[in-house]
Amino acid sequence: MKTIDVCLSPDLMHLYQVNNRTVVVVDILRATSTMVTALAHGAESILPLADLENCRKKGMMGYITSGERDGVKVEGFDKGNSPFEYMDKDIRGKKIAFTTTNGTQAIEKSKEAKEIIIGSFLNLSSVVNYLLLGENSVLIVCAGWKGRVNLEDTLFAGAVVDKLKDYLGPDCDAPLAARHLYSMAKPDMQKFLSESSHVKRLNKLNIHKDFEFCLTIDKYKILPRIKNGLIVA
Amino acid sequence: MKTIDVCLSPDLMHLYQVNNRTVVVVDILRATSTMVTALAHGAESILPLADLENCRKKGMMGYITSGERDGVKVEGFDKGNSPFEYMDKDIRGKKIAFTTTNGTQAIEKSKEAKEIIIGSFLNLSSVVNYLLLGENSVLIVCAGWKGRVNLEDTLFAGAVVDKLKDYLGPDCDAPLAARHLYSMAKPDMQKFLSESSHVKRLNKLNIHKDFEFCLTIDKYKILPRIKNGLIVA
Repeated sequence: MKTIDVCLSPDLMHLYQVNNRTVVVVDILRATSTMVTALAHGAESILPLADLENCRKKGMMGYITSGERDGVKVEGFDKGNSPFEYMDKDIRGKKIAFTTTNGTQAIEKSKEAKEIIIGSFLNLSSVVNYLLLGENSVLIVCAGWKGRVNLEDTLFAGAVVDKLKDYLGPDCDAPLAARHLYSMAKPDMQKFLSESSHVKRLNKLNIHKDFEFCLTIDKYKILPRIKNGLIVA
Repeated sequence: MKTIDVCLSPDLMHLYQVNNRTVVVVDILRATSTMVTALAHGAESILPLADLENCRKKGMMGYITSGERDGVKVEGFDKGNSPFEYMDKDIRGKKIAFTTTNGTQAIEKSKEAKEIIIGSFLNLSSVVNYLLLGENSVLIVCAGWKGRVNLEDTLFAGAVVDKLKDYLGPDCDAPLAARHLYSMAKPDMQKFLSESSHVKRLNKLNIHKDFEFCLTIDKYKILPRIKNGLIVA
């Protein structure tokens, strides 16, 4: 039987063998939500990069430079990490070089996986349906915050575990914990998350609108995946 | 204001600075529950050791040798890791050399802390009262299972966070997640944990009685702490 597990922080990735698994990388606030939005609006591809300098170099080669550090847009970059910046026609057909505090690091630590897909609430059903039909066991990798566990990524993991509960057995306690938390949060995720550290951090940055948007379920029907180091729809 | 944080796995200890914190080490099933039981029944001290060989050497020096690997008593040792083995008069005034899969490792990784105390449901109120009156911020270190997060240690952390919620603010999302899980589990912890991976593992070993006992709240009024490398009441 296929199984499902949840890695609550990239700093726990050494505990998981992923070469036979489909890995779902999730960074709800906001990297993977923004990536999904950009690809849904016609961006050709997204190149995830760990450091700023490589991003800048790609900018000189015609890429759109995107990214944040500690939630704030990088100076000199074309765009930050808000999904609302990726809804215009100007990104259609474009290549994006993307770097974030946590999201790109989670992708980097997942690179031994059999395949990597990009998850967010915005494309939840597309992710769930793909995992259901696929042959592989699953690991959901939560980007967290600088190695720490966060609630919003855990809730996404819980939503996936919940929807697949009749098909994929949990490997360990993390998927159970995530599912319990999601069952509590489900009636009002915004309220449930209002106490969370990252949401408070974002509110200080005046991006409550982003927060609301990133919790929208099934806004887009796309399944971004990583092919040859590039994220494509 | 004092704060409270939760480290859900010893493998995340590098994220926490503990030299100004009181660390509570918890391994509900069963190391810290058993340590609390042994000290409540008059054991003089417990020496936590990471490896079997050092434990054996201490045995030759008059210590009671105690420990398990993967839940099973170590061959040739005096006692295993069941609290019921530590209720007899034969441990009164004795020194115990103790090694377990996860619990002693969590203690080892906490050694930079300002002080370390030993927590379990059996002495929950003693732990909570001590933290309330103490001057330090708090980190609860969950022993987990070979680096992975487990539910029972997380629930204990959640219970402590919940009882201190009006006095110690949460540092990050892990204490919030633990508290939410505890609020779900509280009406019937046994039932809540019955799905958990470790409980299933223990049930296979026929130690359901241990499981029930380790979930008993406030059986003992003691506060074990580590002094000069020894756990004493």
